Amino acid sequence: MIAITKILPRYAETDKMGIIHHSVYAIWYEQARTDFFNQIGLRYDEIENNGIMTPLVELNCKYKKPAYYNQEVEIKTKIIELTPVKFTLEYNIYDTNNNLINIGKTTLAWSDSKTFKIINLKKTNPDIYEKLKQLVEKE
Amino acid sequence: MIAITKILPRYAETDKMGIIHHSVYAIWYEQARTDFFNQIGLRYDEIENNGIMTPLVELNCKYKKPAYYNQEVEIKTKIIELTPVKFTLEYNIYDTNNNLINIGKTTLAWSDSKTFKIINLKKTNPDIYEKLKQLVEKE
Amino acid sequence: MIAITKILPRYAETDKMGIIHHSVYAIWYEQARTDFFNQIGLRYDEIENNGIMTPLVELNCKYKKPAYYNQEVEIKTKIIELTPVKFTLEYNIYDTNNNLINIGKTTLAWSDSKTFKIINLKKTNPDIYEKLKQLVEKE
Amino acid sequence: MIAITKILPRYAETDKMGIIHHSVYAIWYEQARTDFFNQIGLRYDEIENNGIMTPLVELNCKYKKPAYYNQEVEIKTKIIELTPVKFTLEYNIYDTNNNLINIGKTTLAWSDSKTFKIINLKKTNPDIYEKLKQLVEKE
Repeated sequence: MIAITKILPRYAETDKMGIIHHSVYAIWYEQARTDFFNQIGLRYDEIENNGIMTPLVELNCKYKKPAYYNQEVEIKTKIIELTPVKFTLEYNIYDTNNNLINIGKTTLAWSDSKTFKIINLKKTNPDIYEKLKQLVEKE
Repeated sequence: MIAITKILPRYAETDKMGIIHHSVYAIWYEQARTDFFNQIGLRYDEIENNGIMTPLVELNCKYKKPAYYNQEVEIKTKIIELTPVKFTLEYNIYDTNNNLINIGKTTLAWSDSKTFKIINLKKTNPDIYEKLKQLVEKE
Repeated sequence: MIAITKILPRYAETDKMGIIHHSVYAIWYEQARTDFFNQIGLRYDEIENNGIMTPLVELNCKYKKPAYYNQEVEIKTKIIELTPVKFTLEYNIYDTNNNLINIGKTTLAWSDSKTFKIINLKKTNPDIYEKLKQLVEKE
Repeated sequence: MIAITKILPRYAETDKMGIIHHSVYAIWYEQARTDFFNQIGLRYDEIENNGIMTPLVELNCKYKKPAYYNQEVEIKTKIIELTPVKFTLEYNIYDTNNNLINIGKTTLAWSDSKTFKIINLKKTNPDIYEKLKQLVEKE
């Protein structure tokens, strides 16, 4: 399962080099992550309403080519790792010529939204855990 | 002519009140402005490539209700004023229940992208000026 | 009482025009607002911890000259209006040559941080209300 | 040589978890990078004016603890690698209790600001190259 997200880069996201600023990609990954969850029927806002948060533990970005204002990009998102306490998504971003311009990885921890403590998703929410586990195994 | 823009609010756009941060609306207006220009066949990136810039002169926002992460908003954009040196767009933002949650106005100056000086669009680009003039008059 | 805030514009705050993006000023006003409260001994994070929030009701910005990356700006902030339910701050931003480059106004509502409902600050927190009232009267 | 940058986290930088959003750290690294260059007498805006740009090639962030609104953080920045075509800076971020809360690394390419092509800094600007080389060797 690869979720597809299309984004039209915003003017505010450009910088004085005339390209999309590098800090924006983490925000695009997050939008892709929302789409990924929406597409598998696990709305992230509902996950949060159920007392689960997923703060970032690690972020990696490789910038291969720039993105530009008003030139659509496509993000392909998949889950590449899952443990009871965290999960890793990978994002491949393509420009309109289908060039791979950026590769991202984010590792997020399953956490309690009140205490901020790590939770064991396999125990607290086995349904979500199994749903995601199947997606990892398909890769 | 009213351009329609749909935006799914991003997690990064929230603040610790749990709502979309007020500074984000100016960025949404700008995305709506890009869509407005795209829809009337005047891509803003091409306008810029032709040596014209439109820096903001004034911004007004009225916040009536909050917007929330992952709950789509719809922006209706129209041009309400045009002179040879500047123009004003109005943005009405609605939530999924069709409540008007935010009203924005932006006034932008027609400027030379090299010198940053105000230009008289009616003289430099009468085609663009007339196209927009007709839209204002229809309102 | 005029609070002074100095800000070194960030690279990420620039746009492809080579200037600071207009949406950034609302964020600078907010930093100036934090400084304003810090300087009068009312830390805004503590106000929030006491169950009060101040969502924006209205924002006005006038852009007179651009700001640039790595060229310090100075914001002078004062309170110009206070009622039991809302207050208005004004921000004047100067560049290193002491040119007034931007004027902002923000109106914020005193609200309950749980219910988001407007509160009457004069009744709920007369100490804060009186402190601010004196500052308005001095203007 | 370790450059020190102090940052007061902004309200706009928070998210609905109540903490500083993870995408903000790349912006803080960049501000720390500006300070790093300012402190060694190589203002980054002047480097750019001389036709050199440094687009990001790679970004890594490890998030150990959250940062909070209005609670100052301190960033210690040093250069850990330099070749004729790129360089890597490392950022260690501490909270007010001197806890290490975040570790970042950024690799940037020396590039021509007109063509966006990689340049060999050792040849084009040996003075800058040598200045930085000495800093790497001291580590």
